[in-house]
Amino acid sequence: MPPSQKGPVPLLGAGLQFELLSALDSKDFRVRKILVAARAAGIPVALKTCSAEAIGEQAPAAKALALRITRPTSAHPSYITQSNAIVRTLIDASETSGLYGDTEFARSQVDSWLELCWLELETPLAVLQQAKGHGDVIAEAKKLILHALTAVNAALAARTYLVGNRLTAADIALACAAQPILGAAASVLSGKDLATLPHAARWYMTVTHHAAFATGTSSSRGGGGGGGAAARAGVSAAALAAANSTVDAAFYQASAVHTDKPLSMVAPAKYRRRRVRVKELLARGAAAAGETVVVRGWLKTARSGAKDTLLFLVVNDGSCHSSLQVVASRDGTEGFAAAASCGGVGACVAVEGPIIESPAKGQVIEMQAKKVEVLGPVYQSDGSIGAADYPLAKKAHSLEYLRTHAHLRPRTMVYSAVMRVRNAMAYATHRFFNERGFVYVHTPLLTGADCEGAGEQFVVTTLLPAAAEGHACGGRVELPRLADGSIDYTKDFFSKRACLTVSGQLNVETYCSAMSDVYTFGPTFRAENSHTSRHLAEFWMIEPEIAFADLEDDMNLAEDYLKYLVAHALEHCDEDLTYFESKDCPGGEADLRARLRNVLENDFVRITYTRAVALLEEHIASGKVKFQNPVSWGVDLASEHERYITETVYKCPVVVTNYPKEIKAFYMKLDADGKTVSAMDILVPKIGEIIGGSQREESFDVLSQRAAAMGLEPAAISWYADLRRYGTMKHAGFGLGFERLILFITGIENIRDVIPFPRYPGHCEF
Amino acid sequence: MPPSQKGPVPLLGAGLQFELLSALDSKDFRVRKILVAARAAGIPVALKTCSAEAIGEQAPAAKALALRITRPTSAHPSYITQSNAIVRTLIDASETSGLYGDTEFARSQVDSWLELCWLELETPLAVLQQAKGHGDVIAEAKKLILHALTAVNAALAARTYLVGNRLTAADIALACAAQPILGAAASVLSGKDLATLPHAARWYMTVTHHAAFATGTSSSRGGGGGGGAAARAGVSAAALAAANSTVDAAFYQASAVHTDKPLSMVAPAKYRRRRVRVKELLARGAAAAGETVVVRGWLKTARSGAKDTLLFLVVNDGSCHSSLQVVASRDGTEGFAAAASCGGVGACVAVEGPIIESPAKGQVIEMQAKKVEVLGPVYQSDGSIGAADYPLAKKAHSLEYLRTHAHLRPRTMVYSAVMRVRNAMAYATHRFFNERGFVYVHTPLLTGADCEGAGEQFVVTTLLPAAAEGHACGGRVELPRLADGSIDYTKDFFSKRACLTVSGQLNVETYCSAMSDVYTFGPTFRAENSHTSRHLAEFWMIEPEIAFADLEDDMNLAEDYLKYLVAHALEHCDEDLTYFESKDCPGGEADLRARLRNVLENDFVRITYTRAVALLEEHIASGKVKFQNPVSWGVDLASEHERYITETVYKCPVVVTNYPKEIKAFYMKLDADGKTVSAMDILVPKIGEIIGGSQREESFDVLSQRAAAMGLEPAAISWYADLRRYGTMKHAGFGLGFERLILFITGIENIRDVIPFPRYPGHCEF
Repeated sequence: MPPSQKGPVPLLGAGLQFELLSALDSKDFRVRKILVAARAAGIPVALKTCSAEAIGEQAPAAKALALRITRPTSAHPSYITQSNAIVRTLIDASETSGLYGDTEFARSQVDSWLELCWLELETPLAVLQQAKGHGDVIAEAKKLILHALTAVNAALAARTYLVGNRLTAADIALACAAQPILGAAASVLSGKDLATLPHAARWYMTVTHHAAFATGTSSSRGGGGGGGAAARAGVSAAALAAANSTVDAAFYQASAVHTDKPLSMVAPAKYRRRRVRVKELLARGAAAAGETVVVRGWLKTARSGAKDTLLFLVVNDGSCHSSLQVVASRDGTEGFAAAASCGGVGACVAVEGPIIESPAKGQVIEMQAKKVEVLGPVYQSDGSIGAADYPLAKKAHSLEYLRTHAHLRPRTMVYSAVMRVRNAMAYATHRFFNERGFVYVHTPLLTGADCEGAGEQFVVTTLLPAAAEGHACGGRVELPRLADGSIDYTKDFFSKRACLTVSGQLNVETYCSAMSDVYTFGPTFRAENSHTSRHLAEFWMIEPEIAFADLEDDMNLAEDYLKYLVAHALEHCDEDLTYFESKDCPGGEADLRARLRNVLENDFVRITYTRAVALLEEHIASGKVKFQNPVSWGVDLASEHERYITETVYKCPVVVTNYPKEIKAFYMKLDADGKTVSAMDILVPKIGEIIGGSQREESFDVLSQRAAAMGLEPAAISWYADLRRYGTMKHAGFGLGFERLILFITGIENIRDVIPFPRYPGHCEF
Repeated sequence: MPPSQKGPVPLLGAGLQFELLSALDSKDFRVRKILVAARAAGIPVALKTCSAEAIGEQAPAAKALALRITRPTSAHPSYITQSNAIVRTLIDASETSGLYGDTEFARSQVDSWLELCWLELETPLAVLQQAKGHGDVIAEAKKLILHALTAVNAALAARTYLVGNRLTAADIALACAAQPILGAAASVLSGKDLATLPHAARWYMTVTHHAAFATGTSSSRGGGGGGGAAARAGVSAAALAAANSTVDAAFYQASAVHTDKPLSMVAPAKYRRRRVRVKELLARGAAAAGETVVVRGWLKTARSGAKDTLLFLVVNDGSCHSSLQVVASRDGTEGFAAAASCGGVGACVAVEGPIIESPAKGQVIEMQAKKVEVLGPVYQSDGSIGAADYPLAKKAHSLEYLRTHAHLRPRTMVYSAVMRVRNAMAYATHRFFNERGFVYVHTPLLTGADCEGAGEQFVVTTLLPAAAEGHACGGRVELPRLADGSIDYTKDFFSKRACLTVSGQLNVETYCSAMSDVYTFGPTFRAENSHTSRHLAEFWMIEPEIAFADLEDDMNLAEDYLKYLVAHALEHCDEDLTYFESKDCPGGEADLRARLRNVLENDFVRITYTRAVALLEEHIASGKVKFQNPVSWGVDLASEHERYITETVYKCPVVVTNYPKEIKAFYMKLDADGKTVSAMDILVPKIGEIIGGSQREESFDVLSQRAAAMGLEPAAISWYADLRRYGTMKHAGFGLGFERLILFITGIENIRDVIPFPRYPGHCEF
């Protein structure tokens, strides 16, 4: 088990914009440090000069410097003050900069240096500037500076960078501050003092050759020469270029290089995307104006204008819901003719050109294409280019229609949004359990175990092979038979009858009985002939299992987990959730996020099954409600009952506990009354049951009796009973159907629309 | 797709110990801030008073304060300096504290306040202390303090805490610094000034009631009364208690509360473990001495001593390789008799008692049990307690033997270590791809597609049901037949022949063609009758697929990914890797970590297949090597060839590219020479091939020709060919067999020993 992968949820969201409000001189160390770090991190920051008072009015904790963060979804910007906190914010907002090092320990060391830089270098340097004529003050400040740089020098004796093997914010901050000491026009320390700092001097040269220190006017794109010279001239030119305009246009020059060429000093990674993702570009908002970028993706729409001299392309690459608007012109765009006849919607293109602020409503930026390259046109069945045969050429399609084109539907708005949410929920699941020290166990899909769900299992076999010739399934196959005519499974691949699992629980309990806290996340199967909108033959399930835990612990863990997922979705999938609430989304749910927040903000109500039945009976008796299915103690609750309890009675999630033993599995712990078991189902509005779990029977004798009462052979469960024979303990767990979770989070109605390739009776396409 | 879940790899590892070296007065703000934050984070810190010179000798960047971090696996401690950096380090090392807030933005805000606290509160307060008699200096400092607290007050007008809805390090730092201003003995500001700070005053009361501020002498365990009073007395008592002893014994009182009762102010989570994990306890090292804790787990060994008046128990809960040593005595331990006759190895126990520094060699701490509770004894088949029938009772078992007890083998050292590594590698995989914006796609396990691997596929069917009665598989089953005698699959569950997938690649390409960067991570199946140590019938595979990418991009991504995994293992699984290197581990590999570091530190060599064949032929001709399998251009490389290239010729990972088209799949991109395809295999020492990938053929025509040449029906691949018909693009991907990766990382020899329940011909147990 690895240590917790905690760390906070990241800040970076779609459309985030950063603006540095500064009342300081543009050459100030702090401004320079922030701008260079932002550039190295690939985060655009606009610099705005204000009075200290104006800054203080917006951010009371600020004195002369504040970072304003604007989200397109919120009218209220947020502020970060203090220069090092601003540097941390920006480099944390970068996906790839690595400016905080590779490990948490590196992060701590970077922090150490950032603070040393401020306290022992920047502060005495500031004193030095203001202390003209006061010899003693100057001498004291120089002493402090030499002390700090001596520590830097010592740290660099055997290393290239201050922390780890790569450039970090520590190098940037110290190099910015050290410029008047180690730069070309150094004057603060004496030559004799400088001679004691050879490692620091070498390091300074290395660091300031980094592209982030280059001036905006000489792009490094052309090679080492010009950029190198600019870098050698020190950081002041870059800082000036950056600081003298409201939008740091120079940044984008470096950024374009960043996309095309590896900045090996920053990131030793070899893989580079040769394009900007639409999500990343739109996140920059108006700050991206002026940048020339390459975007690759598929056309959502393509229409002509101004007598066919203009072409309006909407390009999406699946990275987010929104698309990039691209304007191409017959005169100004290379490849215009090909683009105009590429088949339209669905064609794959590369577009290149400057980003401008968009004059159109509803979008902040657009691209004026200098070049459009058609990577993949849309072909018709006769081999010509054209939209006639493309199944998604028209705009409006029902979810049912799209299901018949499951290989193309990820290109639609609704499915790509569902898939992004699905991805987020899978990752949040792994994070949740890893943060809590759980071990992920890959329980088997193929099972020879015979102890549950035999009637709903698929058989897996090699007794029914394809015909020898080709790949069709022809020719007569005879099954090996025993004397009584039944199938001789000893001749099958596994020398026994093997099935697809219906749950990993029994298997994962073996790991729980050794590693304490475990979970599964994998596919499970049901051969039920069910055609509802809530059932699939193949679906994914998450099943945690906790040792030394009872039903209450189980409920607590399940509630924490579900709330974690909801919080993660609200935080990370805002754009997609907004879309699911809109009328553009087929079957969109207007108050989706309100429903989710309700789950987050309420303690889950906990009632017994007995109480739930009494409640339903009361409501029926008083005429408040009528159900199709009868209710009485002993019957399982139907979906209509569950939804009534959670949606109408309590209007929040409800945990129903202690069900009659007859309607639950043999492994659930028998309660003291001998009638019920320590099971729990969590019901949520819109879905009904979303989680089912139980404390497990830990007594060998009780388990054996319960299994026998349910008709299970002792031999079939002997391995499972072994866990009670050898070192048993209280334990509990639950299962969450992953697709039901996605229905719950997205508001989509049919479970077939939240899994890439749905399998259900009669359907196993692609 | 969520934003990147970047953030550095955490610091916390097994056995990490923190010691605060301080030359400051124990009442100093900085010391207090660090100790209270550490307590709130649940991180034990020993305080050691030293001279400033002594600290500077160890940590050159330090002045009067440094955090020493010791790992049991390294002889060299690391140092963090600067008080805020130390606070950050400690709260980052906590799995659950939440002291940095819930989001990256909250983290930034916490940073802002931490720096404001230092610059505008702690610094002027320090000035105040030293400025006796200098009225102007005092007035200026008070002005600064009032300014800072006014900002704090304004921020708290509508909130309980400074950041978000929970206590963070910002509250702790500011409350510590604000004690002389807002505490009971406040004297710095005038009553008039204080009256302007009502929100700050309320906040100060709230924060300092937190358990982390309580003094150690009055445990909060007994309830709110005593602890509350202690808290109300302010932080100085706690800080003194903490600062006056080398080991902060008081901390553990609070820590014990932390385990039993939720600190609702810190963590709103409901689920609490009612025990300390062995990993967490041992990580505290000697600092844990004095604490009374509850540990639950299974006995690794149990032996009697001193004429049966003592009992030495070794308790492991699977959280880490190491176990807790527990000493029980007939006189001093409740439950001694039951513990002495619980069946020994494998029994499940709860042990409770104080931790002491261990007099024994090879372990830092042990428990003197006050109470041992036998939760689950080991039973014999006659129902009596005893070790006779427990399959793992004896110590030494071969991996082959343990395989026959797959439900119990996670209780052994070697399997639990393998499973922790497996968990770490799964999580690292999700992190790697999420950090890079890839979308996780659950490709289907059941497939009706007919376009590859038909000969190796398992059929999934409901045509072979279990007999109606019971769960046995008796009775004659007749297959539905077509006129020619072949099986009528239209009568099967999916109305067609369905199989288990051999790869998710073709399916995931449909998502790549819409969302650009995607990956799968799921089970795949091969019905090969293979009995080698490298093949399983069910195994897990990771398959990324990248749009707008060629073979070189593919190789770059694969190299980055493999190095990321290795780095993650070296960082997070050190204790387990150390064990795999030891003689205690069956088949341990002495230089395992050196082999892994070799992968990390070298650029992968890249050669063409043609060059590889020529190379092998040269070496054969010159008598350097002999192979069992012949080598010539056109044949696939055998494992012995691959391992010779990577292990003997280059001694580092090697990427072999551009294989003859005849030996590779139809979907691989045909090279310009018409003879080879843009495929690549990555070979690593010890394993041979670990990754296989290719650029995909993006041309509809070439793909169709290649498929036809390999005998595929156009209809079978029409959905796949659609991706080339509608908006095709360059793309590439690769597959990594997850179990081969685990072999590679752990040095284990047989693939059946790195998956929980191995499936291979004749074996589908449990």
